Amino acid sequence: MAEQLHPVISVRLFGDRKCFGPGVAALLRRVDEHHSLRAAAQSMEMAYSKAWTITKNAENELGFRLLVSSAGGRNGGGAALTENARRLLDAYDRYCAELRDYAARRFDEAFSFCIAAREDGA
Amino acid sequence: MAEQLHPVISVRLFGDRKCFGPGVAALLRRVDEHHSLRAAAQSMEMAYSKAWTITKNAENELGFRLLVSSAGGRNGGGAALTENARRLLDAYDRYCAELRDYAARRFDEAFSFCIAAREDGA
Repeated sequence: MAEQLHPVISVRLFGDRKCFGPGVAALLRRVDEHHSLRAAAQSMEMAYSKAWTITKNAENELGFRLLVSSAGGRNGGGAALTENARRLLDAYDRYCAELRDYAARRFDEAFSFCIAAREDGA
Repeated sequence: MAEQLHPVISVRLFGDRKCFGPGVAALLRRVDEHHSLRAAAQSMEMAYSKAWTITKNAENELGFRLLVSSAGGRNGGGAALTENARRLLDAYDRYCAELRDYAARRFDEAFSFCIAAREDGA
């Protein structure tokens, strides 16, 4: 164990079922970059049908739209983030950062015995 | 969205690479129940080779033993948790509970706009 033991926290949002997490967040960021759900999915090596499904599922669970379509263009029209999608991404990023900060602060105390156990090699 | 939006937090421990998380924790609990790594793996429909690998990887990264073998018996001898494995499970459970509690307390403020956005249906 060259690197010090540390926590990695992942945060998902659920309604009746999973609706938002690192995957959907990454997909939305790619849509913002590529202005297209199809191009966003391709850039992540995700099937378009999967990208469409996880977006629709998230919208249904959240109760608001994440993407708006724009007609025309290549690939059957583009897509853009709604204002609510941007607010959700911002809130999610801040929330994750806050939890990771808390997790890091609490870690050493919670797992201090691991250091001693490691030195024992027991 | 019948159920209220809520966070689900998962916690993994990394050294140079992932070494402990919900999967290894569940496996160790099954070993404690079945007194055998092979039986524990079977009860989770996990290949024995995978159970062996994730246990050894965790031990290498953590720097201490999680399982001790007992000779003889069916299936080529049994296995038991070390005292350090028990302390790790306890520390992990308490740490996860603490993070989930904090995540729940911070959630409504962080995602309050979602409620409004949902009512708008925007």
